[in-house]
Amino acid sequence: MVRVSARLEDLPNSLENLLRPDLRGLTPYGAPQAPLPVALNVNENTHPVPEEVADDILDGIARALREVNRYPDREFTALREGFADYLGHGLAPDQIWAANGSNEVLQHLLQAFAGPGRTAFGFAPTYSMYPLLTRATGASYVSGTRGVDYTLAPEDAAAQVAQARPDVVFLCAPNNPTGTPLGLDVIEAVYDATDGIVIVDEAYQEFAPRDSRSALTLLPGRERLVVSRTMSKAFAFAGARVGYLAADPAVIDALRLVRLPYHLSALTQAAAVAALRHAPAMLAMVDDIVAQRDRISATLAALGYTPYESWTNFVLFSGVADPAATWHALYDRGVLIRDVGIAHSLRVTAGTEAESTAFLDALASIGDAGRA
Amino acid sequence: MVRVSARLEDLPNSLENLLRPDLRGLTPYGAPQAPLPVALNVNENTHPVPEEVADDILDGIARALREVNRYPDREFTALREGFADYLGHGLAPDQIWAANGSNEVLQHLLQAFAGPGRTAFGFAPTYSMYPLLTRATGASYVSGTRGVDYTLAPEDAAAQVAQARPDVVFLCAPNNPTGTPLGLDVIEAVYDATDGIVIVDEAYQEFAPRDSRSALTLLPGRERLVVSRTMSKAFAFAGARVGYLAADPAVIDALRLVRLPYHLSALTQAAAVAALRHAPAMLAMVDDIVAQRDRISATLAALGYTPYESWTNFVLFSGVADPAATWHALYDRGVLIRDVGIAHSLRVTAGTEAESTAFLDALASIGDAGRA
Repeated sequence: MVRVSARLEDLPNSLENLLRPDLRGLTPYGAPQAPLPVALNVNENTHPVPEEVADDILDGIARALREVNRYPDREFTALREGFADYLGHGLAPDQIWAANGSNEVLQHLLQAFAGPGRTAFGFAPTYSMYPLLTRATGASYVSGTRGVDYTLAPEDAAAQVAQARPDVVFLCAPNNPTGTPLGLDVIEAVYDATDGIVIVDEAYQEFAPRDSRSALTLLPGRERLVVSRTMSKAFAFAGARVGYLAADPAVIDALRLVRLPYHLSALTQAAAVAALRHAPAMLAMVDDIVAQRDRISATLAALGYTPYESWTNFVLFSGVADPAATWHALYDRGVLIRDVGIAHSLRVTAGTEAESTAFLDALASIGDAGRA
Repeated sequence: MVRVSARLEDLPNSLENLLRPDLRGLTPYGAPQAPLPVALNVNENTHPVPEEVADDILDGIARALREVNRYPDREFTALREGFADYLGHGLAPDQIWAANGSNEVLQHLLQAFAGPGRTAFGFAPTYSMYPLLTRATGASYVSGTRGVDYTLAPEDAAAQVAQARPDVVFLCAPNNPTGTPLGLDVIEAVYDATDGIVIVDEAYQEFAPRDSRSALTLLPGRERLVVSRTMSKAFAFAGARVGYLAADPAVIDALRLVRLPYHLSALTQAAAVAALRHAPAMLAMVDDIVAQRDRISATLAALGYTPYESWTNFVLFSGVADPAATWHALYDRGVLIRDVGIAHSLRVTAGTEAESTAFLDALASIGDAGRA
């Protein structure tokens, strides 16, 4: 075995000095992984892909494998058509972009519109990857603040953005890790308050009420507006790594300048195209998840905790005396949830009925000791 | 259709100014794509994956699909074990990294060890993505020069590197787009001449003579040395996007700081793991390709052109009167090859026997007009 030296921290005279200065001392991003029976920590869709859909996906992949010796379609034409059809709102394929997960979609946006000397902005607490992705391009990240229960009012949001003058604004709608809905009036106000790119991250949009309007309806006439989505959540496709966005065709042209050639594999394209053909079946579990989310919220309140309003597939709840202690007590009971670093709060993903029950029972068994 | 505005070049007051300054006026990277019957332009392996291997890959993907609703193994444990086994040389899984194509592998290295204020170095002509990937991280790229027939001598290479003082050195071995072998003595000399990271890009190593030594043999005791590979060429897996590298475990730790979480999909991991299990079958076509390469070189010489020595799956040849004219004449005959921008030269991928014959016949049919 060629184990030629020790790890990074033990190499002060060589690799440590070669590492980019802003990376020194960092640890890799990632939620703690543990093989527990009930994993409700990373907002996955805990329902497997239905068998008949998986069969069709496999057929598509089998066809792609026949030509896997060739580079994939750099323009992922069929996939863009699939996303345009799925999203509706009159969108055309030349308004669609996709990448290996919505993190890579956001990375492409930041590579094109942020970078050294520029600034991105988000309202804390929000998706923890925004600052990491921003700084990786050499740009700075500025955090704004939210109002009561993590909500945002149009005038306040616009005033904060106008003052910060960022090049890129992130609006997570609904917001992770709080679940908070975001009104279209906030998006309109923020858009008008900046000359920068406004990214509305709708990773969890499919879990919002059916009659709520997507930011996609705001695209016409707003060429700096971008609406990003993912197949990881509603489509139960976290393992396939497929994120996408809709925007002005000129934004798409800009992203072509920063993407690596052939960034989407032929297998990824085939799998996503097939899954999109089965959108109704893939989304059938969304209603079940929403029902479990609402049941979790109601039960948390009955247990004496304070759940925040959620339009997502997870619930943030406060009133926790010691989040680390409760997290460990649940862990010991075989249930993995997420301590997102908000005081007296924890976040739980809505799972299947059985998983959600397991979480609620485990939390109840901790009793009064868990509550603040 | 929500076609809200025209393309980037028509938006001087809005998106054009938002684009990063260093990207303005660029066009996306990518070889011209055309659906010709004989495509020998991007150094693909033109042999499909054998059917029995494809079946096994599909079985692996079918298993992965059962859990595709969950995020993939962030550490791609089974895949690292597969690469360590395949590469041999006593390598352990913690010395292996992988990403979506070797371009992403190189991007991770540059994100960790280059960036603003730093410099990467390569000997021109070489792989055209090196400067693009480097500049995308905000670093500068410096080109060195090669000797007769694009070869590199140890003393000359070391002297150029010592003078340039780069943070990262690219050594493409064998070299693309020239096919030129690189001696291990050059790698040793360059390593000793720099305190930076030395990347030996062995994308085409499997096409070198069987008794040639890989740079993997130089890893022990050289913690700044990195050897990158790809499954795109010898493994006929260009469509699956799988690149990898071997290096000191401390280098791998550094790459974890810059990769996006879950960057390798569960489907990619399953496909690559299955393909590696069939390495002997997947590599069986390498001998055929090498035979066609040598036949192409011999026939090119007989036709009055000057092929350069190649240890890859392609041949660069000079003695072309007008590369653009010959490229078009071949295009009109249904054969797509590559004008890599070297005076009086063209590059052709070694295909199947039939494809290689089609190219040689088409070139012969151009006759004296093609030769300088």
